Order: sequence, then structure tokens, then C-alpha cells
Amino acid sequence: MVPHLITALSGPLLDLESKVLEATPTIERWFRLEWQEHTPPFYCSVDLRNAGFKLAPVDTNLFPGGFNNLSPQMLPLAVQAAMAAIEKICPEAKNLLLIPERHTRNTFYLQNIARLASILRQSGLHVRLGTLSDEIKKPTWIDLPDGNRLLMEPLSRLGLKKQRLGLKDFDPCSILLNNDLSAGIPPILENLHEQYLLPGLHAGWHVRRKSAHFAAYEEVAKKFAKLVNIDPWMINPYFTSCSNVNFHERKGEDELQTAVEQILKKTAKKYREYGIKEKPYVVVKADAGTYGMGIMVVNDPAQLKDLNRKERNKMSVVKEGLEVSDVLVQEGVYTFEKVNEAVAEPVVYMIDRYVIGGFYRVHTDRGPDENLNSPGMHFVPLAFEQNSIPDLGAKPGSAPPNRFYLYGVVARLALLAASLELERSDPNAEAA
Amino acid sequence: MVPHLITALSGPLLDLESKVLEATPTIERWFRLEWQEHTPPFYCSVDLRNAGFKLAPVDTNLFPGGFNNLSPQMLPLAVQAAMAAIEKICPEAKNLLLIPERHTRNTFYLQNIARLASILRQSGLHVRLGTLSDEIKKPTWIDLPDGNRLLMEPLSRLGLKKQRLGLKDFDPCSILLNNDLSAGIPPILENLHEQYLLPGLHAGWHVRRKSAHFAAYEEVAKKFAKLVNIDPWMINPYFTSCSNVNFHERKGEDELQTAVEQILKKTAKKYREYGIKEKPYVVVKADAGTYGMGIMVVNDPAQLKDLNRKERNKMSVVKEGLEVSDVLVQEGVYTFEKVNEAVAEPVVYMIDRYVIGGFYRVHTDRGPDENLNSPGMHFVPLAFEQNSIPDLGAKPGSAPPNRFYLYGVVARLALLAASLELERSDPNAEAA
Repeated sequence: MVPHLITALSGPLLDLESKVLEATPTIERWFRLEWQEHTPPFYCSVDLRNAGFKLAPVDTNLFPGGFNNLSPQMLPLAVQAAMAAIEKICPEAKNLLLIPERHTRNTFYLQNIARLASILRQSGLHVRLGTLSDEIKKPTWIDLPDGNRLLMEPLSRLGLKKQRLGLKDFDPCSILLNNDLSAGIPPILENLHEQYLLPGLHAGWHVRRKSAHFAAYEEVAKKFAKLVNIDPWMINPYFTSCSNVNFHERKGEDELQTAVEQILKKTAKKYREYGIKEKPYVVVKADAGTYGMGIMVVNDPAQLKDLNRKERNKMSVVKEGLEVSDVLVQEGVYTFEKVNEAVAEPVVYMIDRYVIGGFYRVHTDRGPDENLNSPGMHFVPLAFEQNSIPDLGAKPGSAPPNRFYLYGVVARLALLAASLELERSDPNAEAA
Repeated sequence: MVPHLITALSGPLLDLESKVLEATPTIERWFRLEWQEHTPPFYCSVDLRNAGFKLAPVDTNLFPGGFNNLSPQMLPLAVQAAMAAIEKICPEAKNLLLIPERHTRNTFYLQNIARLASILRQSGLHVRLGTLSDEIKKPTWIDLPDGNRLLMEPLSRLGLKKQRLGLKDFDPCSILLNNDLSAGIPPILENLHEQYLLPGLHAGWHVRRKSAHFAAYEEVAKKFAKLVNIDPWMINPYFTSCSNVNFHERKGEDELQTAVEQILKKTAKKYREYGIKEKPYVVVKADAGTYGMGIMVVNDPAQLKDLNRKERNKMSVVKEGLEVSDVLVQEGVYTFEKVNEAVAEPVVYMIDRYVIGGFYRVHTDRGPDENLNSPGMHFVPLAFEQNSIPDLGAKPGSAPPNRFYLYGVVARLALLAASLELERSDPNAEAA
């Protein structure tokens, strides 16, 4: 199930999209069965790139910001999904502690937190915000541009043995992290034996690796491609990874160059197979990076030799000053969608196993082969398609197809991959 | 969780509404815990009457028609709720058989079936329609006014032992009834030991009694009223029932008159307590009736003596020619809501335990104390509130309250009552 949202697509249904739309009941049932085996993370957002002939996830975020970019009409879907999630995790849940990123002055981010808190409150929880920031030493109101305000409070350990995390007068049964732990696990979050931490600490970027995610995604994509009879490449970009790269010291450069060549070559072969006229490219990304940092577009392996100091610096360090040493080399996927003539990529939001909305990330100064997650981007919420009721089983042609459906499917494939990834990296998992 | 819909309410929040809005997290948690103990019916619609000082359910429908009256924007909520319901009932579900009412020429009703089928298809099921009508002897296409069409097929028993119900080439694991069984259980629906029948046959009007529903509702209302500290009467109309009434033969008339007097008196006492200036009235309803048939508004017990032949006929027989002998005498609840100056009452739709939308039933020729479910009524879908994000925990007054919330709460109380009612009347229930 995917809400019928207005997308920027207007051309005829391409082969991939038609096949997926036709297989809707099969696909939904398949997901239903997969979710019997695997537990989705509490929430997730997925960046997609749509080249028409191909639609693929390029980033799967387990600590999604940007809930404030969703259309307000999406809220009931989000609340309903949160209710379903909470019921599974802890039906008795009463108090929930939400832990945001440290940067308390980014009001845009704080509006995301306000929205998230609102969703959780409406699903029947008492929600309070506990911050990891050292600057907040007592409960502090922060005003938001829209007239709302947030009460940010310092975290504290509770109980005689200090085994629980909460606020001075607030003992939550669940803790929702909206902080991606790029800086590592703060000691105050460790050893919580009697509380639900969502998602688990091992979902943080201090240990998470894009390569592990895309390896899981490859499995999922292969299985799905078989189900609907498509070439898995249509939804899965080629990738490989390189370890021990040091951009400053020019270490691992040859291996990286070979990897880039290999991915370009494989991609070019596929482009020829399908008669695609575009020029293949790859994206080199920090394996543990986030926030659109540590990303480089490469059209030619020779580029890597000629990196200037600034480019080397850019690739060396990501959020919270993490040093880059492992990189992912991924086939670049063009995005041919446009919003008001500007290049756009869809971002899909999920809570539990439900698609609850999305928006376009739009950048007026970038091309269809560039990273749009960069300063200057803006967001356009996807609105509901108002005048149509999709009915895939009724008289053909009588209702417009849900052009958002394919996005919802591919985003959920990435969600399923994230579930596998987290199962495999869970330090508390029982040995099989 | 209740979607934020635009209601006809514009006055200040009344005491009841304020109390319920303030208690949102407590209420949602309470429902969550109740649903751990009780299983909601697959779907349900509830007719409400809103007198401002009081808001109460007056009819709880376990075979809801009118899905076509919901705003198309509500579809994703319905699909998401249906997914959650199916996952609980039968995660492997693939084929679902939908059994509509017999009257195949009512295109308005058939648009409801089309909408319902669309919701179920999008939640990942192969849906086909099997009819109990004797007129349909082979698969028959029926055109709908909106350009869609439906394929109606004759039911048949499948398998060597004929233990399964389906269509000639369609063996469903689940069967959804949208036929209220007023005419009794057709033999073809009996003894299905290997298939899920939703809801169970004991939800049909051949055995269901309004008095059993409102007895369960009274329990639920009392428990809830204690939770939020209100007088249970605010959400629960007085009622009593009379057996062995025969309007033609004037049997049981005295008992009925006494019952009416008693309810009027109790209501008048409450009206005095709260300073309500309106005149109390009661509604006499067939205990097993539906479709707005067999309903009479009484302001004075003496009215019952002077019923003319037409009025007696009207009360004697309900849908499918069922004879009335048991009647419910219920406190009348004024509806003070208006849509374009016409009297209106809200109808709330639920799938599983989720509120998925609603509409106003509007009647331009009826007063605030009359039954609106009668010829000449029309429907106005409730749309999403577009410009507001309810945030009950944020700065007071910064976001408009969700005026639809109270409706969603009271409708779910009726849903919970229906769960208790079905548990108690289930012939297959294990003895406690």
C-alpha cells in the first residue's frame, strides 16, 4: 500500500513501472510475508533516483530528519503507522523520550522534531525531548519560526542502579533516537537493560556501513526482481567498496581507480544492452558518511589522480569529523525528474513497514548526475492526488495509475534491506 | 489517532470536547490496551448524534456501505488499516471473496463495493465478487455511473467435500461479508471450516440485537467516563428494551408506553441537572432493524396509543420483511450540527481499530430530533483540515484543535462495544 501522491512524472508508463503496477497484489503479499520474517526499523527515509529506465535507492536513513517536509495531509498515515509500530514493540507504552541531534540552533531541524513529537503524541504517548547537548543544563524552551516551541531537557540516568535513561521526573519505557550517533555512542546511552531503544545503537553511523546496506539491498533486489520478472539492475545500482583509502596521503588510490573503472565498465555494458545513450558515471562515497558529505561524482577514473587539495579535504572528513578510510563506489543513477525545471529526487518516508509520505529534494544549481543533498537544496512536499481513485482491478484505463507506487515499492525494498542489515549487525542477536 | 477532518463545528470547545482533547495520550493508550484484550470487527461504521453537551452513537453497522462517500484522500488510511487487519487475521492471504448485498441494481451501493474492492486490492489481495443473488447465474459485468465496472459472479462450493466457498476458478482464504444477513444465513455460507469469514455469521441482523450492542456500549462508556472524569451520560443515551411487542395486534403497548415514560423521565432529570432547555424525546427502534427502517420518534407516551395504520405498518416490518417483536427504547439525542443550513449527523468509518474517515449524513427536510437515515438524505464527505497540524503537546493555542477527535473517540467506543457484543454472541467461543 502506497498513498497516491502527485509525482513529477508525466510521460508514458515505462516498462519497469508497468510491470510493478500490474503485480501490485503479488508485491504487497510478498512484503507482508517478508515482514513476518524480518522486523522493520521504527522509521526510515530513502533517497531515490529515477532515471526512467531505472529507479534505485541511493541513501537509506535510519534517523530521518525532514518530517516537517511532508505534507500535513500525511500526518494521519504517520500516526496510524506509529500506533501499529508501538503496539508491536510495547503495547503498554506510556512515556517516550525523543533524543534529537545536538545542534539545537538549527530551527529547520527542530521543526522536524516538533512534527515527530506531534505524530507520537497523537498515537497515544507522552513525549518529552532529552538532549545530548552539553549546553542545555536545565529545561529550556526553544521558539520555532512557526509559532510553536519545544522544551528541550537534559538527560539523566534514573533509578538506584542508574540503569534507566530519562529526564529528572520522566521515566520512559521507550527511547526514540533521532540522533545518528556519528560521533559514537555517548556513555549515557549505554547499558539500558530495561528500556526499548529505537532503533538499536548499532544503527548509528559510528558502526553502520553503506556497503553492508547495499549488500543486503542486492539480495532483496534479486529476490524481488525474480518475483516480478525484471532485471535486478533496474532497481539495483552496481557497487563495490575499497578499504584503507586515505585521500590526504594518497593511499589506496590505485585500488579505488580500478574499482571505479570496473563499475563504469559494467554500467556501460548495461547501457548498451538497453540502448541507453547517457554517459555512465559513478559516485564515490564515504562508507560511513551521511548528510550528503564525503560524496564525489566521477565520470572518468583519471579524475581521481588529479584531485586538488580542496577535493581531497572534502572526501577525507565527514560529519562530526569522522575520518574516511572505507569508501563505496556506486554506479551513478541519473535523476530525470524535474520540479519547476529544477533537478529533483524523491525522498520516501516510512514508519514501521508503511509508506507515510514523501517529498522532492530539489536543487536549482545541480545537474541530473549530481548529488542534490547539498547546500542550496529545497523541498517540495508530495501532495495527494486529489481527483483520482486508483483501482488497479477495475476497467483498464478508467482510473489513472498511481505513479508514486513504484517509489513506495523501491523504498520498501531498501527498508527491508535495512532490516536485514540490522539483524546481521545486532551485537545482541542470538547465534543461529 | 484520528485524522484531523473539517467538521461543521465552529463554536467554542464545550466541556466534554475539551476534556477528551486534553486526555488524548491517556485515551489512545487506553484503547491500545483494550485492543490487546478484544478483537475489533474487520470494519464498522457508526452513526453519531452531536448535541454539543452530549455526543453519542445511535447505530453501529458491522457491514458498512457508503465507503464511496468517503473522501478519496482517506483511501491510504483505509488501505493501511486493511493491511494491518489482514496481517493479523491471515498473513498469507492471497485471494479474498467479497460478498455484497443482493440488490445488484443499486448503483450507489455498487460504488461502495467498488471502493471497498479497491481498498482491499491495494492492500495486496486478489479480490473477486461473489453474489448471493439468484439472478446472476454466470459472471456478469455491471457498469457503474463513474465509468468503472464490476464483475459479479455466482458463488459455488469448492473441493471434494464442498467444504469451501468460492467462485468456479477462485478459492479464497478469506471471505468478507458486506451483506448484513437480514434474511438469515443462506445455506451456501454455512459450515466453512477452513476459511476465514469476516465478520462472523453471528454479526448478521438475523441474530444481532441493538439492545445487546447498547448494553455492551454502556459498560464501555462507564469505563471510559471514569478514565476521563466525565458523566457517562454525556456519551451514553439511556435505553431499555421491550419484548413481545406487536404493533398490528396492539400487543405489549402498555409495557412500551411505560418504558418510554421511564426514559423520558430519566432524560428530563439529566436535562434539568445540566440546565438544558430542549424537550426530551425518545426513539423507538426495532431491536433487530437496520437501514433506518422501523424507527419512530416519540415526544409523549400518549402518541403510542394514537398510532394510525400507516405508522403501525411502518413499525411492524423491517428490511427483508422481518417481523418486529422486540423494540429498543432509546433516549433521543439532538443533532445540532448543520451542513449548509441542513441538519446533519456524522458517520465515522473504521477498519480494524483505526478511524479511516467519515462523512455527514444530511437531510434538508428533517429536524434536529428526527431520523436522518431516510429517503432524501445526502452525504457530504469530511475532508482533511488542510492548514493545520494539531499538536496537543505544544504551546497552547498555537494550533487549532482537532474537532473530529471526539467523534473518532466515541465511534471507537462503539467499535469496542461491538467487539464485546460479538465475543458474547459467538457460538464458537470457548467457555470461560
